[in-house]
Amino acid sequence: MASYLITGSARGIGFGIVSLLASLPASQVGKVFATSRQNNSSKLQELIQQHPDRVQFVQLDVTDKDSVKRAAAEVERALDGKPLDILVNNAGFMPWASGGIVDANDLAETFDMNVVSVHNVTRAFLPILAKGETKKVFNISTSLGSIAHADKYTHLLVPSYKITKAALNMLTKQYALEFVDAGFTFVVISPGWLQTDMGGESADLTVETGVKATLDIMHSKTKEDTGKFFNIKVAGWENKEGPNQYDGTELPW
Amino acid sequence: MASYLITGSARGIGFGIVSLLASLPASQVGKVFATSRQNNSSKLQELIQQHPDRVQFVQLDVTDKDSVKRAAAEVERALDGKPLDILVNNAGFMPWASGGIVDANDLAETFDMNVVSVHNVTRAFLPILAKGETKKVFNISTSLGSIAHADKYTHLLVPSYKITKAALNMLTKQYALEFVDAGFTFVVISPGWLQTDMGGESADLTVETGVKATLDIMHSKTKEDTGKFFNIKVAGWENKEGPNQYDGTELPW
Repeated sequence: MASYLITGSARGIGFGIVSLLASLPASQVGKVFATSRQNNSSKLQELIQQHPDRVQFVQLDVTDKDSVKRAAAEVERALDGKPLDILVNNAGFMPWASGGIVDANDLAETFDMNVVSVHNVTRAFLPILAKGETKKVFNISTSLGSIAHADKYTHLLVPSYKITKAALNMLTKQYALEFVDAGFTFVVISPGWLQTDMGGESADLTVETGVKATLDIMHSKTKEDTGKFFNIKVAGWENKEGPNQYDGTELPW
Repeated sequence: MASYLITGSARGIGFGIVSLLASLPASQVGKVFATSRQNNSSKLQELIQQHPDRVQFVQLDVTDKDSVKRAAAEVERALDGKPLDILVNNAGFMPWASGGIVDANDLAETFDMNVVSVHNVTRAFLPILAKGETKKVFNISTSLGSIAHADKYTHLLVPSYKITKAALNMLTKQYALEFVDAGFTFVVISPGWLQTDMGGESADLTVETGVKATLDIMHSKTKEDTGKFFNIKVAGWENKEGPNQYDGTELPW
């Protein structure tokens, strides 16, 4: 009966994770905190109406330190002494640069969203995670953040996204190394190319398929896996041609 | 008779590179643009007085876009139609976080200095580099920016430095991939742990040794090496115990 908090829950992968968690048996999932900058997602509001005891909306603008602080206090109150078990840093930003790297004018803003925000959310929720035994943090990254695989993705003109996700990978590694002795698990997940608003219609996988595979990683990885970067595993996609294989293995940095 | 521009030339590795370039024969080194935020380094002023025809000071605050633009115009005028051959992005910032990662309050500022600035300087000077045949850009990074080797450096409490240098590595890779067909060489160098103000007195190597090894990389690497991350090579340090070996090999991302 683990408790979860997911950032960026209004749509895309974040909403998909909250939806899937809402459907699982109470023996597996306790409280789910669905956070977003604004409470204006009708599908999230509907989901909360269907699962009022399980899913709770928490206003959280990850780029605003005061908002992060308020959200942590609200979650701590709601949990009433119990720990937060699993934090999923999902909120992210992928700006396009049609002219390639020289046209990337949003590097600082993208870093603020994709790295500084994850850092601030993580450190704000760390004390609530530390109360428990699970203590897992999953940072949603991307195979596009793999420097070793960068030559596979030259056709995707999202340099600020690639650069900041590589930085997110190192941020995760730093947390993993520092909190290994305290029993924390920090893992980076590449959730695949999904048919979200961000991923577009021609993406490889439905949101449901990608989210299920992402949750499989969250539930199977343990302390032994801290500091690692995992690809999702999807049947039939282990040896696909093209840049994306979903084989469940570790991705290179 | 290659021309060079080095950012952060007032001290440390930047000053070391300018000094060494000033001492090399005119058959190897042409104009050297030594840039710094302020022209207040007495040792740099002295060096310029000794080599007035070769070394030229250019005011350049890498974090200020207007300053970058002015510097590029000044260098273009000074070169009078000739290309800039080698750009060395050396200026950098390494803040300590005594409490480790949760104590890192300067992530955004460090990213601005170590990544956004390199991006802005690189794209401003790209047209002047493109006029030539050499077209080499060397970004000074660090083995501490290797995510794969992060467990070797847990004792060094510089998380913002590590995270932003991993991002710099990806930035370099993006430039390398985009400009490979235009004949550019973009390489990341880890110059070793040197006895600079930043490195401290107990560092592994003198500035002279590290700078000489760094220049060896600059002079030996070609288009075939674009997008790679090189360790310096120092005799006697190839198989040292401890975290630092200087064996001239590629570092893992």
